[in-house]
Amino acid sequence: KCGAWISHFQKLFVLFIGADWIYLMLLGFVVAVLSFTVDVFVDLFTEAHRWIYNLADSHVVLQYLAWVTYSLLLMCFAAGFANIVSNKATGSGIPETKTSLRGVMLKEYFTFRTLVSKVISLTCVLGSELPVGKEGPFVHVGSVCAALLCKFMSLFSGIYKVLTNVIILKDSQFVVYLVLVCLEQNKNRNEEMLTVGCAVGISCCFAAPIGGALFSLEVTSMFFLARNYWRGFLSATFGGFIFRLLPVWNRKEETLTALYATKYRLDFPFDLRELPIFAAMGIVCGFGGAFFVYLYGKISLFVKKQQAKKSFLMRNCFFYSALVSVLISTLTFPPGFGQFMAGRLTKKDSLISFFDNRTWSNHGIVADFANDDYLAAWKHPQVNVFILLSVFIIMKFWMSALSITLPIPCGSFVPIFVIGAAFGRLVGEGLATLFPDGFNVDGHIYHIVPGAYAVIGAASLTAGVTHTISTGVIMMEMTGQISYTLPILISVILANMISQSLQPSIYDTAIRIKK
Amino acid sequence: KCGAWISHFQKLFVLFIGADWIYLMLLGFVVAVLSFTVDVFVDLFTEAHRWIYNLADSHVVLQYLAWVTYSLLLMCFAAGFANIVSNKATGSGIPETKTSLRGVMLKEYFTFRTLVSKVISLTCVLGSELPVGKEGPFVHVGSVCAALLCKFMSLFSGIYKVLTNVIILKDSQFVVYLVLVCLEQNKNRNEEMLTVGCAVGISCCFAAPIGGALFSLEVTSMFFLARNYWRGFLSATFGGFIFRLLPVWNRKEETLTALYATKYRLDFPFDLRELPIFAAMGIVCGFGGAFFVYLYGKISLFVKKQQAKKSFLMRNCFFYSALVSVLISTLTFPPGFGQFMAGRLTKKDSLISFFDNRTWSNHGIVADFANDDYLAAWKHPQVNVFILLSVFIIMKFWMSALSITLPIPCGSFVPIFVIGAAFGRLVGEGLATLFPDGFNVDGHIYHIVPGAYAVIGAASLTAGVTHTISTGVIMMEMTGQISYTLPILISVILANMISQSLQPSIYDTAIRIKK
Repeated sequence: KCGAWISHFQKLFVLFIGADWIYLMLLGFVVAVLSFTVDVFVDLFTEAHRWIYNLADSHVVLQYLAWVTYSLLLMCFAAGFANIVSNKATGSGIPETKTSLRGVMLKEYFTFRTLVSKVISLTCVLGSELPVGKEGPFVHVGSVCAALLCKFMSLFSGIYKVLTNVIILKDSQFVVYLVLVCLEQNKNRNEEMLTVGCAVGISCCFAAPIGGALFSLEVTSMFFLARNYWRGFLSATFGGFIFRLLPVWNRKEETLTALYATKYRLDFPFDLRELPIFAAMGIVCGFGGAFFVYLYGKISLFVKKQQAKKSFLMRNCFFYSALVSVLISTLTFPPGFGQFMAGRLTKKDSLISFFDNRTWSNHGIVADFANDDYLAAWKHPQVNVFILLSVFIIMKFWMSALSITLPIPCGSFVPIFVIGAAFGRLVGEGLATLFPDGFNVDGHIYHIVPGAYAVIGAASLTAGVTHTISTGVIMMEMTGQISYTLPILISVILANMISQSLQPSIYDTAIRIKK
Repeated sequence: KCGAWISHFQKLFVLFIGADWIYLMLLGFVVAVLSFTVDVFVDLFTEAHRWIYNLADSHVVLQYLAWVTYSLLLMCFAAGFANIVSNKATGSGIPETKTSLRGVMLKEYFTFRTLVSKVISLTCVLGSELPVGKEGPFVHVGSVCAALLCKFMSLFSGIYKVLTNVIILKDSQFVVYLVLVCLEQNKNRNEEMLTVGCAVGISCCFAAPIGGALFSLEVTSMFFLARNYWRGFLSATFGGFIFRLLPVWNRKEETLTALYATKYRLDFPFDLRELPIFAAMGIVCGFGGAFFVYLYGKISLFVKKQQAKKSFLMRNCFFYSALVSVLISTLTFPPGFGQFMAGRLTKKDSLISFFDNRTWSNHGIVADFANDDYLAAWKHPQVNVFILLSVFIIMKFWMSALSITLPIPCGSFVPIFVIGAAFGRLVGEGLATLFPDGFNVDGHIYHIVPGAYAVIGAASLTAGVTHTISTGVIMMEMTGQISYTLPILISVILANMISQSLQPSIYDTAIRIKK
């Protein structure tokens, strides 16, 4: 009787180790820790940047040098590291994952070397404050982790196969069968794990498990197995959970909340009369998204031609990156042109300021808010906020399109988010100025919430660029509010309709150009 | 030149009519209007029920007769109507849709006759206050509408085919080709449209477009086309939008909000120490869900045997339904046993009371809230609220499992929601009593929010019964709050793990029994 129990226990244990969910949770855990570490270092880098910049406040030229050189050095290190350690680490990662899923397995794309190269150079690129994002590279990181863990787990299963053969003679057949099934699964897992890796990557960037799982399905596959959906959800949920748990353990946050938690009013999120404006924003974002893809395509093609010609700029990996880095950090230099585009804000700070619950301005002049450094950046003595926001949108638009063509790890998601949010904020602030009294509904006065416009703008511009609906879901999870579901979905769908009929998605464009 | 423009316009017009999105939006519109109409009539029926009940307050026997007879009459009418007009209208609809998607096309299942039968008898069943839901039948209604609209649209395309052949001679070939493509699409659309119909049905029941689209994918298919995902989203969004727009137009609500909008605090949704409790709730709900499926299976088999034996009860469609109706309405009779289970609340009222922002009780005694009729139902002079909630859960559990075996249109989703919410509220109120001071985090005091427990309980019990993750998303959309994403997902996944290893889903059980 006791022997039967032990063998039963053994069986359970093998099942337990071979079980998918251990693998999926481990994957979520690893990617979350990586994502959190990257965030911590990026924060350190940007803080150091501002510290050096403030240290050199004796003279504006010194300040300029400090501002530009810091970015330049990080950039050059990142470009060098990425190209020397493993040049498979350059670029976004989503187009490559998509190609792999279509059956074209890229060489050396899912190795430990690539992982190291990608994570370290990504951290430096983000630290240099180039307008690029972390989600594309993290889709790649997620996939690599999935592939490596897969190998590791199959190794484990192999050991167990031998062990169980030796120990449990009684019903070894059953156990061996189980282990073989596990091994077989591991082999066939290749494609599935890529999808899961993608879901985890997104989830650990934005703390958006549902959006991540959906995004991975939308972007990576033409058709998907229900089984994958399950795996994606489990892994993404655990990853997102750990990703938000780590700041709480580090006493940076009080509890698990959304990444950019907002507190818009819940009782009356929006008026029906605002819906046409949301829809119009969706349409504009559709055109904007298509134009972004077009611009990106043109620049990419130009770069490719120069590479083929082996022109001076492209002869090694540093020149082009360095040039772009100097150009962009010159333009964002806060006392220089940067004053017209809130140059001293990082992407994160800008997003926080765009999603702010309050209406910033009174007839275009940003009000004084106590202890709010972010909003102060949008205050200019001569120029009103509408012009600042417009300049911000136009400059960031081409800067982002340019930056994501560099030979470094870079994603387009977050910069697009920022531009879309700026556009939404512009519309929202404009409406708040036009209708300062808000809406009168049955005797209640409801003011316009410009932050909500920023959320909708961000979601729909990203939808226009990536051709996905799940950006809307990611947006809701990022801001921690779901009361704007319908406006978000409506404008996201409209943006998709417009941009899909004009241009392929940014990922398909990248695949076409790289071919 | 002018002729070219006209022909171009003609082409565009044909494309426009043949286009998918017109079809998808029309589908959303029709199902939303149906759903809203059903809701209006159900509200009328339940109001009338209470009006008659209050009218007869001279004597308790009279009251009892009024309470029971009303339900009985509606029930008998529903059962008669469903079985005489079209007996394909009985049951949930999700198992049948699932069967159809697997390739076994059921006869007469997607006809106008079935639609009429289903909608009218469903309204009466819901009006009789049997603990059954509307979402299963609405999945069926959505599919029928999709099928009928498909026919209608192909008819339209057919007319256009003739028209365009006659009018545009110039580039008729191209147009004819387009129309032929449309027609071809219409033929192959059969399966896809079922998935879309399912998404729309769910979306129009709960105003949950994202959840609806996901639920349809999870429940109906083993693998799904990315194309379907798109269609589901578009149709579900428009349907959900119209469904929430209609109450605003009828001046019942101020603006588009969630169906059961909650206002839990956003700054500190939950403490980390509450997570193990949420996880434990998920596990309990997993067992509960599996037990519900088991119970349902046993009752169904018993009923099937009786039907085969042609026993007295099953000889016609009325007896069994009438018996159950009398039994259930006797037990919920408010001055009788109903006083121990808040018998006078409808499903909607109970859900509103469970999702309430406030903590109901102080050591088990429900506090006095001004103007709140729903919470007053949970106040009993002798018995404390924990016992009331426990009685409610136990009674509703078997009542729901019994009700969904009746030969009427009925869904299991909503009653399970209600039971899960009651369970969550029980846990939440218990904790609030145990820890009346809440959590002290860095000097801030945060009280326990029992409503959030109700949300999590509802999501995870439904997940346990239906074996889906999207119930969590539906829950978030229904309550209009997403700050509990992680706890909801964690407990939903745990509930799924437990119940999937114990029992098949309720839909698979229904398919197996009906075979």
